[in-house]
Amino acid sequence: MPNVKSGLDGVVVAQQDICFINGDKGELDYRGYHIDELAPTATFEEIVYLLWHRKLPNNEELALLHERLIARRALNDDHLSLIQSTPHTAQPMSVCRTGVSQIGLYDPEKLLFDKETNMLKADDILSKMPTIMATFARCRKGLKPIPPREDLSHAANFLWMLNGEEPTPEAEKALDLYLVLLAEHGFNASTFACRITAATWAGMYSAVVSGIGTLSGHSHGGAIQEAMNQFQEIGNVDNVKPWFKGCLKSKKRIMGIGHRVYKSLDPRAPHLRAKVKALAERSEDHKWFDIALKLEDIAVRHPRFKERKLYPNVDYYSAPLLHMLGLNQDMFTCMFAISRAAGWTAHIMAQYEDNRLIRPRAKYVGPKGLKWTPIEER
Amino acid sequence: MPNVKSGLDGVVVAQQDICFINGDKGELDYRGYHIDELAPTATFEEIVYLLWHRKLPNNEELALLHERLIARRALNDDHLSLIQSTPHTAQPMSVCRTGVSQIGLYDPEKLLFDKETNMLKADDILSKMPTIMATFARCRKGLKPIPPREDLSHAANFLWMLNGEEPTPEAEKALDLYLVLLAEHGFNASTFACRITAATWAGMYSAVVSGIGTLSGHSHGGAIQEAMNQFQEIGNVDNVKPWFKGCLKSKKRIMGIGHRVYKSLDPRAPHLRAKVKALAERSEDHKWFDIALKLEDIAVRHPRFKERKLYPNVDYYSAPLLHMLGLNQDMFTCMFAISRAAGWTAHIMAQYEDNRLIRPRAKYVGPKGLKWTPIEER
Repeated sequence: MPNVKSGLDGVVVAQQDICFINGDKGELDYRGYHIDELAPTATFEEIVYLLWHRKLPNNEELALLHERLIARRALNDDHLSLIQSTPHTAQPMSVCRTGVSQIGLYDPEKLLFDKETNMLKADDILSKMPTIMATFARCRKGLKPIPPREDLSHAANFLWMLNGEEPTPEAEKALDLYLVLLAEHGFNASTFACRITAATWAGMYSAVVSGIGTLSGHSHGGAIQEAMNQFQEIGNVDNVKPWFKGCLKSKKRIMGIGHRVYKSLDPRAPHLRAKVKALAERSEDHKWFDIALKLEDIAVRHPRFKERKLYPNVDYYSAPLLHMLGLNQDMFTCMFAISRAAGWTAHIMAQYEDNRLIRPRAKYVGPKGLKWTPIEER
Repeated sequence: MPNVKSGLDGVVVAQQDICFINGDKGELDYRGYHIDELAPTATFEEIVYLLWHRKLPNNEELALLHERLIARRALNDDHLSLIQSTPHTAQPMSVCRTGVSQIGLYDPEKLLFDKETNMLKADDILSKMPTIMATFARCRKGLKPIPPREDLSHAANFLWMLNGEEPTPEAEKALDLYLVLLAEHGFNASTFACRITAATWAGMYSAVVSGIGTLSGHSHGGAIQEAMNQFQEIGNVDNVKPWFKGCLKSKKRIMGIGHRVYKSLDPRAPHLRAKVKALAERSEDHKWFDIALKLEDIAVRHPRFKERKLYPNVDYYSAPLLHMLGLNQDMFTCMFAISRAAGWTAHIMAQYEDNRLIRPRAKYVGPKGLKWTPIEER
């Protein structure tokens, strides 16, 4: 039997044309566009179009996508009441997983895998995830849910449904950038889970639900929440140095620094850093930016981090960004899911286009040839 | 970059001591016991204990497991009303996926991964899945749900909740055997999905939900339903021969014959065949057994099937077995899930015990170096 490839490190499981990552150089491309080409100008909706259709949309194509997505934002009354009756103590990622699974209850989910049917399901998932999460976020605070608006972008509509007021242009842009940067990242664990589910010809809802569940783990999407906990533990900028020294001493990992793939600066981090800086400059509360910047500065110059090529990853500046947009920490990973749904659905459609069951093997290392004994003799 | 291992054929992703399969010899062992040792006598509850604890239980251990499982059968009132308000047109596997996801809403799902916490979640999932599915099956027929009983086995209690009458000993034994035989099967696609989800330290509910979604595809758990459709299409035993000839001519695949792993008779098939025969002998309706037996007989002797080593798989006789127990065809895959939950939870606990993120790579084959163009110029 061949060697055990624990964690599938370095095993190449598919060909794909969605995302290119060069971890050593810190390069990330969506469909051939370097993230530095996209981050300054592209909207989340343009990225969704790019990921789904392999090209940037023209005005007409983008308007049609907006129309399709906007038309699917509202939950039906039954689904809305299911979300409203969700226990307020539930973890938001469990609500996200259940909520998307529920969308599938209202879909005949016939065994149709033609491109247009799948595209409609992808529209449905992408449009309704923000509604589900904003509804839950308000209900658990005892507030009435706010229906989606038809005249706002994906980012602005979410903040509207969450807060009941139109976001400032800076807030909208900050969330939009976050959604752009997190939308896709190759064969990460959650995307791989989506593809394994799709590979049995399970439906789009099942596949995305696998992605959400997989993202919820603390070594994947859960890390962003822990990055914020850490900044709050540090508490103020004067405490960064002593806190860092404490970490070194206790060999505690710094959350948001280091990445399984990137052995240089995560190419998304500088874009997020610049946006957090801009948000901080317009707000009275620039504490989180100051703490994050100082900690980065100290960490990247420290020999232990240099040697191991540990740099801020995408979680590091996402945490203060989402915090400054008014999101509770336990909602952070759901925002990640709301963005990554774009990449997941693109990968699921690619899997259906050239489908093959994904079934690896495992090496058996247990006992053999045991004989049944009646229960009285055990 | 190394070669693309599409479908991960032959790639060994882990060591495990849960299940041994030799596809060429048609061998299947759970924790070192050949399935032929277990099938004649073991109950599903004994198999659950074996898979979770690496040994067959003594009387005391088995009684404790029964107690733990029975205590968790009932849904709380809120969860029950969620299942009752599920649209009746929903696909049962979507209900199963959503229902298990909902169990997680009522669990604090704290980031506790100690053995006992996970064992309690596994109890919870295993016990409540039959209740969720029996409740839905009745509600969609306009019937009142029947609460679980505390004095019945896992198999008998399910049939009780489904039909409101105690099953005959034969029916209970037939379902129990089905649950025993489907409980575990190595690194199949759904189990692999469970492990990928668990590998990010996502919780047990998320991991099982990934398994259910993955099982729902027609090339995995969905095939059993299609096997029954085929027997119904054949319709009567005299039509087997002409139908088979038609299949050969049109090169149509026969559902329930052939397996990705087994290149000889699936070791579970003869046990199921014997049980279907026993059920048929006690019933007025032995048509399905007669059709299945005759079709097997013709197929395995045909050169095309001999050459390709195509034999009945586990789905083949599962279909008439579940049909004769009174289950609707669209519930068949849910029964598979109810059984496989035992193996899934065993694998998830094994993954937590020796955890490592599963993150393969993909080869990028798309364009590179594209430049951003303003929308007006596209």
